[in-house]
Amino acid sequence: MQTLTSFVQERWIAGDGAATPLFNATTEEPLAETRAGGIDFRAVLAHARDVGGPALRAKTFAERAAMLKALSTAIHAHREELIELSVRNAGTTRGDAKFDIDGAIGTLAAYATFGAAVGERRFLTDGPGVQLGRTARFWGEHVLVPRLGAAVHVNAFNFPAWNMLEKAACALLAGSPVIEKPGTPTALVAWRVAEIVVQSGVLPAGAYQFVAGPVGDLLDHMGPQDSLAFTGSSGTAAKLRGHANLVARNVRVNLEADSLNCAILASDVDSSADAYGTFLSNVALDVTQKTGQKCTAVRRIFVPKERVGDVRADLGAALAKTKVGDPSEAETRMGPLASANQLRDVRAGIERLAAHAEVATGGAKSIREKGWFVAPTLLVARDAHDAAFHAEEVFGPCATILPYDGTPDEAIALAAQGGGGLVASLYSNDAATIERVVLGLAPWHGRVWVGSDKLADQGLPPGMVLPASIHGGPGRAGGGEELGGLRGLAFYLQRTAVQGFKGYVESSFGSAPSA
Amino acid sequence: MQTLTSFVQERWIAGDGAATPLFNATTEEPLAETRAGGIDFRAVLAHARDVGGPALRAKTFAERAAMLKALSTAIHAHREELIELSVRNAGTTRGDAKFDIDGAIGTLAAYATFGAAVGERRFLTDGPGVQLGRTARFWGEHVLVPRLGAAVHVNAFNFPAWNMLEKAACALLAGSPVIEKPGTPTALVAWRVAEIVVQSGVLPAGAYQFVAGPVGDLLDHMGPQDSLAFTGSSGTAAKLRGHANLVARNVRVNLEADSLNCAILASDVDSSADAYGTFLSNVALDVTQKTGQKCTAVRRIFVPKERVGDVRADLGAALAKTKVGDPSEAETRMGPLASANQLRDVRAGIERLAAHAEVATGGAKSIREKGWFVAPTLLVARDAHDAAFHAEEVFGPCATILPYDGTPDEAIALAAQGGGGLVASLYSNDAATIERVVLGLAPWHGRVWVGSDKLADQGLPPGMVLPASIHGGPGRAGGGEELGGLRGLAFYLQRTAVQGFKGYVESSFGSAPSA
Repeated sequence: MQTLTSFVQERWIAGDGAATPLFNATTEEPLAETRAGGIDFRAVLAHARDVGGPALRAKTFAERAAMLKALSTAIHAHREELIELSVRNAGTTRGDAKFDIDGAIGTLAAYATFGAAVGERRFLTDGPGVQLGRTARFWGEHVLVPRLGAAVHVNAFNFPAWNMLEKAACALLAGSPVIEKPGTPTALVAWRVAEIVVQSGVLPAGAYQFVAGPVGDLLDHMGPQDSLAFTGSSGTAAKLRGHANLVARNVRVNLEADSLNCAILASDVDSSADAYGTFLSNVALDVTQKTGQKCTAVRRIFVPKERVGDVRADLGAALAKTKVGDPSEAETRMGPLASANQLRDVRAGIERLAAHAEVATGGAKSIREKGWFVAPTLLVARDAHDAAFHAEEVFGPCATILPYDGTPDEAIALAAQGGGGLVASLYSNDAATIERVVLGLAPWHGRVWVGSDKLADQGLPPGMVLPASIHGGPGRAGGGEELGGLRGLAFYLQRTAVQGFKGYVESSFGSAPSA
Repeated sequence: MQTLTSFVQERWIAGDGAATPLFNATTEEPLAETRAGGIDFRAVLAHARDVGGPALRAKTFAERAAMLKALSTAIHAHREELIELSVRNAGTTRGDAKFDIDGAIGTLAAYATFGAAVGERRFLTDGPGVQLGRTARFWGEHVLVPRLGAAVHVNAFNFPAWNMLEKAACALLAGSPVIEKPGTPTALVAWRVAEIVVQSGVLPAGAYQFVAGPVGDLLDHMGPQDSLAFTGSSGTAAKLRGHANLVARNVRVNLEADSLNCAILASDVDSSADAYGTFLSNVALDVTQKTGQKCTAVRRIFVPKERVGDVRADLGAALAKTKVGDPSEAETRMGPLASANQLRDVRAGIERLAAHAEVATGGAKSIREKGWFVAPTLLVARDAHDAAFHAEEVFGPCATILPYDGTPDEAIALAAQGGGGLVASLYSNDAATIERVVLGLAPWHGRVWVGSDKLADQGLPPGMVLPASIHGGPGRAGGGEELGGLRGLAFYLQRTAVQGFKGYVESSFGSAPSA
């Protein structure tokens, strides 16, 4: 049995404690294991802070951007191998595996571009300078400087490559050394990516560490210049946010948690509209892609009451014909869930929802003897306002049609019942409806995606997280924020007001600095 | 005995529970009391969310700005009365009282200006739009929209007018209804300000509520669209950040806590330099203004070893001649501390520091029979690296000279020992030193103030918090951020990425919107 090693303090080590196995999600065969123990987490943090941090901060944004570009290239050179590994470890189809691997490669490349545009600087200037006194002599600027701690990233199992490297891209470009912890079920993919990162030799010592198993007492040693970013369940998120040491020392925490994302079919979009076709294909994609294990996947589909019959038929047909099976087979369009726990939770979740709904297609039953399979499942709620549909995310290939009265107000109100989400999508061709619904959805969502005839197939689907737009959401979704171009760096930077004689302050810290 | 009433759900009510008295800090005579009980905090929050929020959000930024301007005018009309009340309740001199009252008036006026510049809009556009797809059709913008909850402000006792109204200015301009809780020792001033705000009739119903006494179970009812901003001790701050309901529901929390602010005299500034005079007068002001009860006051004074004798003599002389006494007497330059608790804590703090230092002037003893007086106190540390000087803030008229070797590196390292502060001030005329030290201080401070000969007396002192520059600091200082122009609104807004067809997205949500 392969033991996944950790890369800490510039060496690869295996744990010496309890083992946790990883499986092939299709065959249930054990593939590898992670082990607890053997790591001095205080020393890991010190290595990041004392060795990695200074080396990164000595570089300019352009130099750090060049490292990200080189990492992107290094991952790309192993693309085929990583796709194959993902199919085996994560139960993903080739298409799903590409979504993760290419996402990682693309995000690194995008941040390389963002960083190169900043150029040969070591801090950012935030906004224009301002006169602070009665004369222009007393002047103020705001700068964003690298914080001096380590960035600890606790990543989700569903995107072992992308989730680790989108977080690392922002941190490293900002000048923060990273300590990466993968989600266990798919840690084999993450571990191989970590090996490629280390072997590339691109990053200075201390800039990148990888902890394959549990993080032990790591959080107890974090301090006020460190930061913790987490993607995963809201239960774990709350434990992290309330952690005594993180609270006492004001450690920065960013959370991405559960999200009952919604799609809204506006009443102006009839079945002949291009936007209706986009709606059907995007929702079907969200249900089946990554077997529905996508934090941005649609869970609630708001459909005008009189259109429910059509949508149920059209969407049900698309889902029912999805070929589910061994993801290593070319014709397979949806593989298994990633773990036995996932299968248990998703089946229980579908059963819970089905008690309040009709099952249009799929259902809670296992569909193969071996492997963690469920069918793509479409439900139709009996009552759209029933709290059952707005309270708990079923993290699998399952979504529910919620009939509404077709008005913007009810769509906005139902969307808000989710308590805060990562993304809402709206399908409409009416500019006034779009403006009204987007502004109504915005307080509850980190992102709103609008489909329309004029966009047709030229847009990327709403489930896709793009480096130029922020990713995160309020309330249930964790209240966090990642990506969004240079906005994604702010979490790793300290904003500081600088005040003094204009001649010094503007020339050294203004947007066109002498440095 | 006057009972301070609370303004909740559009009426003034007295509590019916345990009483907490407020005193004249000079005479120790009871002045008034607050009472617990009698308030349904769930209903208070609902009133803010359901009545105040919609009314505020219906207005544009320009309209909300006009309300702030009117509030500023209303407070100004009662300026003399408020100054007199502050002298009586808070133990402040007239000068100190003006600092608080005029700070409130000025901050409201400044935010009126910031809001007017935004104009007739109801949301902000954040940064330029970006092309997201291969063609320009797929386009992204970021908007900042008002969140739908209540803003709960738990304010500090030291600035009863300013602290309440700087927080309220940002929240109200952003479209958030406020619930204000004053610091108890000076709640009489805050209560009178609240009365003026309410009587002005400027704000719509539900936009402003004032809770004179304890907030009971208020925090238990807060939700994901609400926000809590606190200024006060780090002990209370940690309790708020770790509060179970706030953690579980991802309620936004902003904290301003303790800060061991420092002043650094660079080795290039000799005794004949204008910057040396500025240094002496600013430090003396910070020690004595508001009897040292200012979150931005200097606590640690870094002086090159060979200059310690001069600074000790010059600063000691300035402090020793400060006239301490009844703040209602015109010649008084420093009044009492604000409360008996403050006197106890400050005396204990001075004693703790004095065990590791020489007392240049002042000391821990009470200096009058009645009233909560201590003398302006200057200490000289035996060892600048001694943790005693970097670990706990003495929130009174006390600062310590810490001898250092005169190098930028040691000044930066000593400043960092404070674990995160609101403001550091540097006195230097050397551009290279300024650039190096400012960037070295920045990761640990929300603001860095630079004094120099060329600024001379044209700058405002570092202890002053200005609406155009951010206020807050990492680590021990709470990790929060307030003010800074429109930056101060972000806490009350949700940032949302909008994606879709460029024709819709750019015209409705871009920086030059149709609306």
